[in-house]
Amino acid sequence: MELIKRRGALIVVSAPSGAGKTTLCHEVRQRVPGLFYSVSHTTRAPRPGEVNGTDFHFVTEAEFLAMRDRDAFAEWASVHDHYYGTPVQALEGALSRGLDVLLDIDTHGARQLRQRYPEAVSIFIMAPSMKELEARLRERNSDAPMEIARRLARAREEIAAWRQYDYLVINRDVKEAVDQLATVIEAERWHTSRLTLTFPDVEVPE
Amino acid sequence: MELIKRRGALIVVSAPSGAGKTTLCHEVRQRVPGLFYSVSHTTRAPRPGEVNGTDFHFVTEAEFLAMRDRDAFAEWASVHDHYYGTPVQALEGALSRGLDVLLDIDTHGARQLRQRYPEAVSIFIMAPSMKELEARLRERNSDAPMEIARRLARAREEIAAWRQYDYLVINRDVKEAVDQLATVIEAERWHTSRLTLTFPDVEVPE
Repeated sequence: MELIKRRGALIVVSAPSGAGKTTLCHEVRQRVPGLFYSVSHTTRAPRPGEVNGTDFHFVTEAEFLAMRDRDAFAEWASVHDHYYGTPVQALEGALSRGLDVLLDIDTHGARQLRQRYPEAVSIFIMAPSMKELEARLRERNSDAPMEIARRLARAREEIAAWRQYDYLVINRDVKEAVDQLATVIEAERWHTSRLTLTFPDVEVPE
Repeated sequence: MELIKRRGALIVVSAPSGAGKTTLCHEVRQRVPGLFYSVSHTTRAPRPGEVNGTDFHFVTEAEFLAMRDRDAFAEWASVHDHYYGTPVQALEGALSRGLDVLLDIDTHGARQLRQRYPEAVSIFIMAPSMKELEARLRERNSDAPMEIARRLARAREEIAAWRQYDYLVINRDVKEAVDQLATVIEAERWHTSRLTLTFPDVEVPE
């Protein structure tokens, strides 16, 4: 007897650069079973080792713009003269099969997604303070001072959007922050808005 | 440096009779620290062993009605000629001190509470099937057949309200159901709607 059918949750994760989003999203994918990884389309060239269809779907600008124009992206952005987009079809296919989709996108993309999918669950990840964020950006060493200043200014803008998200996770400690992300995702699996119940012996309204 | 201030969450739990709500609420209170237990007012007489102020605040009908008339109850009901009510003052005191309040009430009381506190988090607990619910009611042995029939009819009415709740928990196994309740309560502790952030070195809008 199938009691419960569940539509997947669309889980949107944003964070200012340096807050540790990439590590946390990677860890939470290892931890929580049944999370669907959405492969983005991009017009930038593959980097050494990147595999088409796994890391990205690499497409030409003409192909990207044609997809954008027929509304085939759930959200898209232009970053450093390249386009990036989340394809609607794979995303909706996963959700309707009951898989939760974890999307790691910036505050601008998150706003686009919430407009199209108001039922999305959004999580904002923050470093414990701006000082800590700055220290983490400097530790990376790979960025020039001008680039660090630019990222910090952008981080301040992004942090101002925290209240538009459903949940906040402060990344003081990776293990603790991954626990919190996993807890939110697991709780949302029981949200009634995505459930359909079939009780064979009682009439349950939709 | 105090980073985060949190208002408590008002957590409303309902279930049809026989779904195991009392056991689950007791277990979750043992498990999750920082849950506030709201002591109800009632006009019924104390049963042997019940302590005034701990199990209930025992009051006269005149006292109860005076409180009700000055809107001192977050929700109230009349059951078998006795009044029961959840006092607003203790509840709001706990919430503003950042304590989560777990209220175990019926679907009617839950509707009253959601009107007054639209930010309440509501959880509906269900038995795996009506057959199972009926079996559990019979196992109790203490109820006469008429009483069981009455409770089953009432259960069908209550189950019809499941979609008005935020979360659903199916009580197949006590340990698993308590895990789910605890997961929902812990996730809701990071809901942005109840958080205030103070970053000393960046301006974060309310």
